[in-house]
Amino acid sequence: MSQKINIGVIGAGRIGKIHAENIAYFIPQANLKAIADVNLSPAIEAWAKELGVQTVTKDPKVLLDDKDIQAIIICSSTDTHADFVVKAAAAGKHVFCEKPVDTTVAKVNAALAAVKKANVKLQVGFNRRFDHNFKRVRELVESGAVGSPQIIKITSRDPAPPPVSYVAISGGIFLDMMIHDFDMARFQAGSDVVEVYAQGAVLVDPGIGKAGDVDTAIVTLKFANGALGVIDNSRKAVYGYDQRVEVFGSLGSAAAENDAPSTVKLSSEAGVVGEKPMYFFLERYKEAFIAEMRAFVLAVSENKPVPVSGDDGLQDLLVALAAKKSLAEGRPVKLSEIPRE
Amino acid sequence: MSQKINIGVIGAGRIGKIHAENIAYFIPQANLKAIADVNLSPAIEAWAKELGVQTVTKDPKVLLDDKDIQAIIICSSTDTHADFVVKAAAAGKHVFCEKPVDTTVAKVNAALAAVKKANVKLQVGFNRRFDHNFKRVRELVESGAVGSPQIIKITSRDPAPPPVSYVAISGGIFLDMMIHDFDMARFQAGSDVVEVYAQGAVLVDPGIGKAGDVDTAIVTLKFANGALGVIDNSRKAVYGYDQRVEVFGSLGSAAAENDAPSTVKLSSEAGVVGEKPMYFFLERYKEAFIAEMRAFVLAVSENKPVPVSGDDGLQDLLVALAAKKSLAEGRPVKLSEIPRE
Amino acid sequence: MSQKINIGVIGAGRIGKIHAENIAYFIPQANLKAIADVNLSPAIEAWAKELGVQTVTKDPKVLLDDKDIQAIIICSSTDTHADFVVKAAAAGKHVFCEKPVDTTVAKVNAALAAVKKANVKLQVGFNRRFDHNFKRVRELVESGAVGSPQIIKITSRDPAPPPVSYVAISGGIFLDMMIHDFDMARFQAGSDVVEVYAQGAVLVDPGIGKAGDVDTAIVTLKFANGALGVIDNSRKAVYGYDQRVEVFGSLGSAAAENDAPSTVKLSSEAGVVGEKPMYFFLERYKEAFIAEMRAFVLAVSENKPVPVSGDDGLQDLLVALAAKKSLAEGRPVKLSEIPRE
Amino acid sequence: MSQKINIGVIGAGRIGKIHAENIAYFIPQANLKAIADVNLSPAIEAWAKELGVQTVTKDPKVLLDDKDIQAIIICSSTDTHADFVVKAAAAGKHVFCEKPVDTTVAKVNAALAAVKKANVKLQVGFNRRFDHNFKRVRELVESGAVGSPQIIKITSRDPAPPPVSYVAISGGIFLDMMIHDFDMARFQAGSDVVEVYAQGAVLVDPGIGKAGDVDTAIVTLKFANGALGVIDNSRKAVYGYDQRVEVFGSLGSAAAENDAPSTVKLSSEAGVVGEKPMYFFLERYKEAFIAEMRAFVLAVSENKPVPVSGDDGLQDLLVALAAKKSLAEGRPVKLSEIPRE
Repeated sequence: MSQKINIGVIGAGRIGKIHAENIAYFIPQANLKAIADVNLSPAIEAWAKELGVQTVTKDPKVLLDDKDIQAIIICSSTDTHADFVVKAAAAGKHVFCEKPVDTTVAKVNAALAAVKKANVKLQVGFNRRFDHNFKRVRELVESGAVGSPQIIKITSRDPAPPPVSYVAISGGIFLDMMIHDFDMARFQAGSDVVEVYAQGAVLVDPGIGKAGDVDTAIVTLKFANGALGVIDNSRKAVYGYDQRVEVFGSLGSAAAENDAPSTVKLSSEAGVVGEKPMYFFLERYKEAFIAEMRAFVLAVSENKPVPVSGDDGLQDLLVALAAKKSLAEGRPVKLSEIPRE
Repeated sequence: MSQKINIGVIGAGRIGKIHAENIAYFIPQANLKAIADVNLSPAIEAWAKELGVQTVTKDPKVLLDDKDIQAIIICSSTDTHADFVVKAAAAGKHVFCEKPVDTTVAKVNAALAAVKKANVKLQVGFNRRFDHNFKRVRELVESGAVGSPQIIKITSRDPAPPPVSYVAISGGIFLDMMIHDFDMARFQAGSDVVEVYAQGAVLVDPGIGKAGDVDTAIVTLKFANGALGVIDNSRKAVYGYDQRVEVFGSLGSAAAENDAPSTVKLSSEAGVVGEKPMYFFLERYKEAFIAEMRAFVLAVSENKPVPVSGDDGLQDLLVALAAKKSLAEGRPVKLSEIPRE
Repeated sequence: MSQKINIGVIGAGRIGKIHAENIAYFIPQANLKAIADVNLSPAIEAWAKELGVQTVTKDPKVLLDDKDIQAIIICSSTDTHADFVVKAAAAGKHVFCEKPVDTTVAKVNAALAAVKKANVKLQVGFNRRFDHNFKRVRELVESGAVGSPQIIKITSRDPAPPPVSYVAISGGIFLDMMIHDFDMARFQAGSDVVEVYAQGAVLVDPGIGKAGDVDTAIVTLKFANGALGVIDNSRKAVYGYDQRVEVFGSLGSAAAENDAPSTVKLSSEAGVVGEKPMYFFLERYKEAFIAEMRAFVLAVSENKPVPVSGDDGLQDLLVALAAKKSLAEGRPVKLSEIPRE
Repeated sequence: MSQKINIGVIGAGRIGKIHAENIAYFIPQANLKAIADVNLSPAIEAWAKELGVQTVTKDPKVLLDDKDIQAIIICSSTDTHADFVVKAAAAGKHVFCEKPVDTTVAKVNAALAAVKKANVKLQVGFNRRFDHNFKRVRELVESGAVGSPQIIKITSRDPAPPPVSYVAISGGIFLDMMIHDFDMARFQAGSDVVEVYAQGAVLVDPGIGKAGDVDTAIVTLKFANGALGVIDNSRKAVYGYDQRVEVFGSLGSAAAENDAPSTVKLSSEAGVVGEKPMYFFLERYKEAFIAEMRAFVLAVSENKPVPVSGDDGLQDLLVALAAKKSLAEGRPVKLSEIPRE
């Protein structure tokens, strides 16, 4: 590869920092040229300097106007994602956008239309597809080793709930948390979801209930290919981040267990004790974040399809909206019931 | 214990033979006195003789009339269970009845009324409660180690489907197969089910679909104590009998994996290969069948409550009927919708 | 099988009781006809009566003289084993003898000569060969799945040391405890041992050291077929009975882990906790004791070779004596150095 | 930290490249200033340029003379290690030296004396101490969770033997391969070795035997603190790199299993198949190589003791030489027999 891809990152919060550092340290095919953050601080400037970033600014427009930048990584607040996709596409830049693209179908549609019109790439940040365990499950499914998928089971539990203030603006458990699992379910099933039934309860924090959300949920899925699926979410697993996936099919089952910091077991009078799972997504998906960014950079530099498309983002949103409707109305909801415009 | 309980077994099919042998070989507190089977054959007679059974007959009435028999084990065909419970109770005998007591609420009610009137004991054959793994999960839950239960997850898959002819008369997957899991879910949750939603599909054998049943199902549950539950069933797991239970709560999770014939792992160029789960219920629940019968005999001999009551049988039936209705109507069904008379 | 084998048991201590009960309850091809114990007590008589034993006596001669008894199980104290083997053989009876046959080569030779002369069968009580895990390892080795064996590794640790008074008369750790592992090593290697080097230490109980023994030992082995082996023993593993075997070869490795009471794992803030291994040999080898007795009865009733021969007992003794000599002299000892007469 | 440590790497072979890349990419506290390789090639120059190295030379003297370089990483061929340690120390530079420092005691002594005289730091490249699994075992041992160590067990098998030509100049299995395990054993025992007994065999490749070495070995150890140890090595485990450690003590056991590329298990008719261990040291110890270099850099920059000292390197060498002597002479060898000069 002769030429490095110049990249600009919009939003230097937690996830923006991760992507920026991954590009700077682990992806030799890319050059982290610019960072924009509306809340630019001396700390961010110092951090960006350490990374060797050329342009550090409050104004995202600077990045969009920079002719040398080929790709934009959007890590700003969710409500600004779709607008930045539209603007970046209009500026002829490829886009990596954190999930979700938006919480409304209309704005996602607009973003996808802009991308299509500009003929640029759009990859959505469903990082779990790049996890070594879940990728291996998918490889086994694709290889035919489990036969035709019949049941997709996902366990996905966070170690601790977010602040109630965050929950209130998050769009709710389905749009904020389980949307990752909807994407994983579609990824593993190799098929889109056609119907959803959602159960939910407030078992972790009454404040979450007061904010109009649930903190514990079980959602069942029907896929276009006939397979069934089930996802369970909890906002609080005291033993750590619980991230497991199983695909059961006509020839067998492929199941991914949690990762732990070590394989060590302590046998004592108290029992045989192993380590808890990796604490949370930063630990568990550390390598996956690098891999998704590498995949995006290679898709751009080699002009190949991105591995997680804008349509994936749209489909996952539709499932989440159907789950929300299902919980509200206490009945299974077909995806065809969710307006596409 | 001074005196052995004399026991009569009605029905010498597969499960009747298991119970008879367990009583004869493993339960010194009981004496297997009589066996009745409407299809009595020389083979059954020879087998009974080997067990040292005193009375072998075609006529169950002989057992019911035998004043020395204190307890009857009902292993006849399902449609005769409730009638035998009524008759045995009327004869003043304690009753162990294979599951389900009946597939209709009315006949179960009649059986329970007869038992109550006669003041005899009735234990229903939900053997899985006695499995070493699931019992251990329950112990941990009861000890408070997982805190308050929030999610009950059960995986329950058979190694191979029964003949379609059997499926046609079985009452369907919920009454025939998943009823075990409904009982397990209630056992682990320590609470009754209040609402059910059932998804089903025909993914294993089209013949099962033609017989009006499904072979793959996912059912979500709401419990009276607020916990949620999910059960998945398949009639065919090519790798063997898949029987797992997990209880997730506010302080952690207790999860039972499958049993295998050995712990041996073979590491070779092909990977690290462990054994498949025990093939089917005869292997997996061998000890559990002994334990449930021992519990019944001790409940009788020491006049203590049976560990699985007639009301458990009724509750499990109600859940199964609600699941059947849910699948038929494509909506969640409250248990209060199922007529109790 | 037309006729049951009549069996007499000499010695009704712990292991004698196990064998007697296993014959009575689990081996329909045998009839437990007689029990002799020099310390006959009312408790033993009551227990024997419960088992339906016809003859209960202080005098082993009664059993040896009983023409209807075809086989004798020797469970008396170790110093009497060889004499009873000689007498039983002289009486034309097949013999199952608890390990070791004797702690001296001369008496084992005499016992083997008597058995050979009388043309009766002699099986030695190395029960671990019948353990489901270790048998599975051996099956994999015999199938060729691990290729030619190169390293045999055995971990064998007791949960708690025996009383020092027992240690003093036990013959020491190699003859009392590790002899089981020597037999397992030979079984898995499919080859005899030619050289031994023993390391030992007193790390558990100084009283064991005062009694002239060690409580912790590592022994390396060379086999006739070129393979190497290593065994480690401790008299005290606080987490329970640690019994693992690994055979490593040119095509891979077969490794058996411990058995536990259940597969349940508790995930909490404290970690992921599984159960300790089965507590001790009564629990771990419960099924193996039945299987070894069944194998003996079938060898007699079907006139087939016994699975653990008198020569196995002799070879294991030679290895143990070589280990003892090695520890005493601080050097590797060839088995050819141990006098065979 | 205000100032980066400038580092020069001598030797750009496989391990030199790893250290150089780790410094360049993962250790912000260090600056990779110079690389010397006697076989400098355009490929090495291009690679060094990509890493941003300022000085690339054939002549190690350039690095030693560079006043701005504070630390030297020695990755040249083993026979040059000690000389470079002496020269680097004389130049006032801290030293990280790949293992072994030398294969003779005399030259190691000289190196250690030079380091002492110059009052610089010397860290030896025993990377496995930094492995997440083995470090965790050590933490548990140090925490007292396993009580006083009694048995240290190490399994260490390579996936494939090196070329016979390499074996011939490697110093043999004990100096080349098992020296890592000797270091691990001492690390875990927290004590030095006082006696060694080595068994060896040629079971993998007759060519290795012709070269005067063995390819399969079991070594038992006695530690100064009374603990016993055992290590088994094979040059060829077809299932991959087998690296396990267990410390057994008075209060329990801490055991590290292998790492695998994923946690995924495929259950099918063929069994339950997990992944093989990571293929070899580059995969397994990827993070450990970074961690050891980070530890070295921090020891220098913060002027703290190095975690693996020159004396560790000497002690490990003594154990290896004792093992070599033991195998040659067929007897246990005390470390006091190995000349210290």
